[in-house]
Amino acid sequence: MSDDFMEMDKDVLDARRVEAIQDAVEANDAARLDGLLEPLHAADIADLLEQISANDRRELLRLWPNGIDGDILSELEEGIREQVIETLSPSVLADAVRELDTDDVVDILEDMEEEDQDRILGALEAADRVAVERALSYPDYSAGRLMQREVVAAPEHWDVGQAIDFMRSNDSLPDQFYHIILVDPRMKPRGYVTLGRMLSSRRDVALKDIAEESFRSVKATEPEADVAYIFNQYHLISCPVVDEDGRLVGVVTIDDAMNVLDEEHEEDMLRMAGVGDEASLTDTIYEAAKGRAVWLLVNLLTAILASIVISEFSESINQMVALAVLMPIVASMGGNAGTQTMTVAVRALATRDLTAQNAFRVIRREAAVGAINGVIFGLLMAAISGWWFGLPMLSLVIAIAMVLTLISAAAGGILIPMTLQRFGVDPALASGPFVTTVTDVVGFFAFLKLASWILL
Amino acid sequence: MSDDFMEMDKDVLDARRVEAIQDAVEANDAARLDGLLEPLHAADIADLLEQISANDRRELLRLWPNGIDGDILSELEEGIREQVIETLSPSVLADAVRELDTDDVVDILEDMEEEDQDRILGALEAADRVAVERALSYPDYSAGRLMQREVVAAPEHWDVGQAIDFMRSNDSLPDQFYHIILVDPRMKPRGYVTLGRMLSSRRDVALKDIAEESFRSVKATEPEADVAYIFNQYHLISCPVVDEDGRLVGVVTIDDAMNVLDEEHEEDMLRMAGVGDEASLTDTIYEAAKGRAVWLLVNLLTAILASIVISEFSESINQMVALAVLMPIVASMGGNAGTQTMTVAVRALATRDLTAQNAFRVIRREAAVGAINGVIFGLLMAAISGWWFGLPMLSLVIAIAMVLTLISAAAGGILIPMTLQRFGVDPALASGPFVTTVTDVVGFFAFLKLASWILL
Repeated sequence: MSDDFMEMDKDVLDARRVEAIQDAVEANDAARLDGLLEPLHAADIADLLEQISANDRRELLRLWPNGIDGDILSELEEGIREQVIETLSPSVLADAVRELDTDDVVDILEDMEEEDQDRILGALEAADRVAVERALSYPDYSAGRLMQREVVAAPEHWDVGQAIDFMRSNDSLPDQFYHIILVDPRMKPRGYVTLGRMLSSRRDVALKDIAEESFRSVKATEPEADVAYIFNQYHLISCPVVDEDGRLVGVVTIDDAMNVLDEEHEEDMLRMAGVGDEASLTDTIYEAAKGRAVWLLVNLLTAILASIVISEFSESINQMVALAVLMPIVASMGGNAGTQTMTVAVRALATRDLTAQNAFRVIRREAAVGAINGVIFGLLMAAISGWWFGLPMLSLVIAIAMVLTLISAAAGGILIPMTLQRFGVDPALASGPFVTTVTDVVGFFAFLKLASWILL
Repeated sequence: MSDDFMEMDKDVLDARRVEAIQDAVEANDAARLDGLLEPLHAADIADLLEQISANDRRELLRLWPNGIDGDILSELEEGIREQVIETLSPSVLADAVRELDTDDVVDILEDMEEEDQDRILGALEAADRVAVERALSYPDYSAGRLMQREVVAAPEHWDVGQAIDFMRSNDSLPDQFYHIILVDPRMKPRGYVTLGRMLSSRRDVALKDIAEESFRSVKATEPEADVAYIFNQYHLISCPVVDEDGRLVGVVTIDDAMNVLDEEHEEDMLRMAGVGDEASLTDTIYEAAKGRAVWLLVNLLTAILASIVISEFSESINQMVALAVLMPIVASMGGNAGTQTMTVAVRALATRDLTAQNAFRVIRREAAVGAINGVIFGLLMAAISGWWFGLPMLSLVIAIAMVLTLISAAAGGILIPMTLQRFGVDPALASGPFVTTVTDVVGFFAFLKLASWILL
């Protein structure tokens, strides 16, 4: 420990080290490889394993058979993790999972096939196995899955001295904890005391008197997204988890909540782009193609719908080919404006800033923004089209079509996510195709219909 | 305290409470209003102020003149915060900012006009003012702006008992702290001890012997995004901040890092949709319209570029109007596929999963995915177009165009963000227009050019 203590910054994983590691693998030099990998943080080793090719990964694991520990497994992405676990000997795997807290074991297990799960559960000691199986009995993505069962609790009538003596005599405290949870005789949480507050108080001070003013707990069945929201909203560091009867069963810490928040963001972003939830750089070609094909199919259908609208006006296009040249501009501007509004709306729904309370005001604002930008870009495009084609009536048509399209883009961009949310559909996942359909259909129809009225 | 302690969950801000609050405001009932607002968390009061109309907000503040404290100010969005500060009497404002930690005061000040800054700085006590001014001397969005200057440090040779005695005798410990930082005589951090570890150790144990194995510090000038990355990557709870000479000047805690991460995500999402960084539901119509107009202008230019491509083929369209009907489908599929790849790439660059190391493999994979989906949707669209127009050669044209467009969408979707990043441009901000230009131009050109060769 003393040696480690002197060395302030651990080594980092930069391009030079990655190259050196690959050289060592190619040279079959196990000792040099170990020297390069050992000082790295588990998170960096996991990143390295994700970034190198499948071939290099296999070679590296062969040369470094005992290097993979529980922390590295925890940090790996699901797909790569399964590959790594397959290469591990049963004894290395058993050691790796035994050293983890139960919440990390649950995190590894929940994405696995049942037979792989059994392999890992078999490697655990009986008490841990029961704890992990109990955690797995909670719904997917619930607080019960997220929490660690190792909690530090004290009777509410204790004083600081009793709590410190209890902790000094307890060998199995969790790795990380930031509060002592005060419980009543039936194990119901009644408040909590920060360790900092405790350390700065005299031994005879009652824990009750230094408990935090604000105190929240969550039910084990509560969705993890709601738990992450509570952490972010109220700046929590840890939060007790209770069962149906209100009894303390575990604690969620901020690092887990931060992780959930990070994943939620990533999912929202990927969903909005139609890439599927689990998209990652380590997906195979087949997985990536399949994940995106669904969305492309939806887009094909909406694009065909827009084409049907266009084909209704074949006659008009035949009479004036300039219409075919200009019509994509109107649709494209509508698509962009719709995406802008939709993104603001989806984000505001996720952060719970858009509520029944301010919905009407926000809708009105978006419609006004659409109208203003519609007028600005309608006029601009009218000027450009006038200079290009020299037909004043064509300029009039494109200006009006632009205003109508941008207003409906704004309306669609806000109303569609809100409606989906109301019906329990994730707005990040499904808003895009609907909004695009609205802007394409309105864009092409408004422009071509006005043209056939005014111009032809 | 004892009373608060008994009441486990604080009140929540639900639709019913919002309505009750608005009723109290309308009825001019200051006592009822205070009873409804007082039990709420500062974050919820801030949300309420953001959600109600400007008129209701003014009325509420008039009826509740002493309710606004520093915590509520901290939680408010910038635009609304300025409105609220303007309504506060100098003494209420002074009390509000005095109770905050220096990092929160800095957070409030950094977005303000200079004269408003002076008003707030004037309300602070001299020592705090100096601390805040020193923090403001660090670059925007740096660790120095983010950190709190209140740190708990101990000489590296102390034992647990000395540290506990020191904390018990110290009146000005920060509100939240999770580690004791060990420093050498020149105030350089040498390691840290978690409070949990300290509380569970005997008084005669040397702090050095229970220091954490891994220890990182950041420079005060380091960008906050890098600090947030370090917290997320290495699961830190707090991190010491050092000056140019390596001396301890403050500490960043995980709640601040979580906040930065949250903002980075939000910015990336909004930037990719072209809404501008600061877009929020509380923007005025003018701000929102202006923020989005920039992007719409860029989109107009790329759409016109695509139109110029189309106009080159006016003759072909005149001969076969089906081309005008089908061409938006090719461009739209390309746009979607390009956005999918681009989103994965931008996200992977942000999380540092896409590096020089795996770039070539990822590019190859994306091209393959583009080719596979190009073939699938090319064939599908060939069948649909065959059924619709009954021209086998037209089906051939759209199939080939689809493959070419989807491959170039994949290539553009990955190469454009990587190139922008290489030149120091934020890929989330600028990738969209370039990718759309590529997919539109390639989509229209490939389809129309092939048609003019094969069909006409």
